[in-house]
Amino acid sequence: MARTIQSLERAAAVLRLLAGGERRLGLSDIASAIGLAKATAHGLLRTLQQEGFVEQDPVSGRYQLGAELLRLGNSYLDVHELRARALVWTDDLARASGESAYLGVLHQRGVLIVHHVFRPDDSRQVLEVGAMRPLHSTALGKVLAAYDPVAHNEALEGDFAAITEQTVTDPAAFERDLERVRSRGWASETGETWEGVASIAAPIMDRRRMPVGAVGITGAEERVCPDGALSPRLIAAVRDCARAVSRDLGAGRF
Amino acid sequence: MARTIQSLERAAAVLRLLAGGERRLGLSDIASAIGLAKATAHGLLRTLQQEGFVEQDPVSGRYQLGAELLRLGNSYLDVHELRARALVWTDDLARASGESAYLGVLHQRGVLIVHHVFRPDDSRQVLEVGAMRPLHSTALGKVLAAYDPVAHNEALEGDFAAITEQTVTDPAAFERDLERVRSRGWASETGETWEGVASIAAPIMDRRRMPVGAVGITGAEERVCPDGALSPRLIAAVRDCARAVSRDLGAGRF
Repeated sequence: MARTIQSLERAAAVLRLLAGGERRLGLSDIASAIGLAKATAHGLLRTLQQEGFVEQDPVSGRYQLGAELLRLGNSYLDVHELRARALVWTDDLARASGESAYLGVLHQRGVLIVHHVFRPDDSRQVLEVGAMRPLHSTALGKVLAAYDPVAHNEALEGDFAAITEQTVTDPAAFERDLERVRSRGWASETGETWEGVASIAAPIMDRRRMPVGAVGITGAEERVCPDGALSPRLIAAVRDCARAVSRDLGAGRF
Repeated sequence: MARTIQSLERAAAVLRLLAGGERRLGLSDIASAIGLAKATAHGLLRTLQQEGFVEQDPVSGRYQLGAELLRLGNSYLDVHELRARALVWTDDLARASGESAYLGVLHQRGVLIVHHVFRPDDSRQVLEVGAMRPLHSTALGKVLAAYDPVAHNEALEGDFAAITEQTVTDPAAFERDLERVRSRGWASETGETWEGVASIAAPIMDRRRMPVGAVGITGAEERVCPDGALSPRLIAAVRDCARAVSRDLGAGRF
């Protein structure tokens, strides 16, 4: 078994550091955060800069993430079969539901948004592709935790942070929630991630019937849960979309 | 001066390889393309996989780019001040012009699209954030080459590929075009990148009056050049947007 390469692990740690928290850091901050001598950190940063992964502000001398990451991230999306198959269906989902549609996959103990279709109205919206969402408080995350054993473990090892007053913070209650997800075939949450916002999601299966992602909608509670109950029309739209993408990926009919 | 780190440079080469061309490659292909022993390449890939930068298909054993690149690419956008300042203004530009609006920066001998606002109609459009465009055939690229000496050099060292029959492939003609761009303060092209598609762009300056990017619109020739000439209304909308973003970045009034 090949050994891992220390300088690469350290470089990845530098990039993760710059991706979170402060985002513009000086050499000393970076060296002390990663636990490296300044000369070692400088060699890493110099190489990362040469490759376009970090940029140095000419005025302050501070480092930040570089443009090459954006270019490579875009190539990741191009190659991602799930996203390619889902493009048309999530457009239809946003149109049919009148809400924002999202496609998420498991990544680093959370849900990585790999596709986002804006709510079809004229409101200003921010693209959330590349953003991370919690496993325990989102419908997408619950779907992944319910169907993917790896996601399930990651969720249970997580911190169950109380993001709102509605967030389920008790692992036993979360497990009961996942049971319900598996028996119904879809997940939902109301106000567990954002106050006043509800979401519905369903699993996408590949040709081996393995869960490869989740698709869902998110919108104002008043629209997603009219009269206090989840809209059956919206649940059906989300499940139709998940089935369509799964079929496109080669899964048998449900 | 710190030395660069060879394993990092090799890892970057692997990622670039996976971002272009085939995109799903086996160990032997990767090792021979980068010129490495298979054991060395395997160590790199193993570490890149552990850090989430590459993924291995469980069936074919082939490697492809990993989700961590998408997450880091998104963080790059979050930290990019130019994009943050331009969000509102490019929305206005798309609305005022009725065309797609783009924000581009110089990256690796080309234009990296860092923001894209869809044409405000109901048509299906693909998000182009993270995509690369040529310097010599796009209005965004001509603006960068006209105002940024680094971009100018990169453009002249480029291949002047004939992308369409309209593409300017003669460096001397390109230089004359850039002169015109500098004297007018904006650039345009008609059918030089895509047949039947025209674009207009203008430079964004920062507080030191250095060119930091370009903003522009792209649309069908029939709309952008009604009666065969560029629409003065669209030129004005693009220049208004570029001025507004520049002012937001602290540049003096033009």
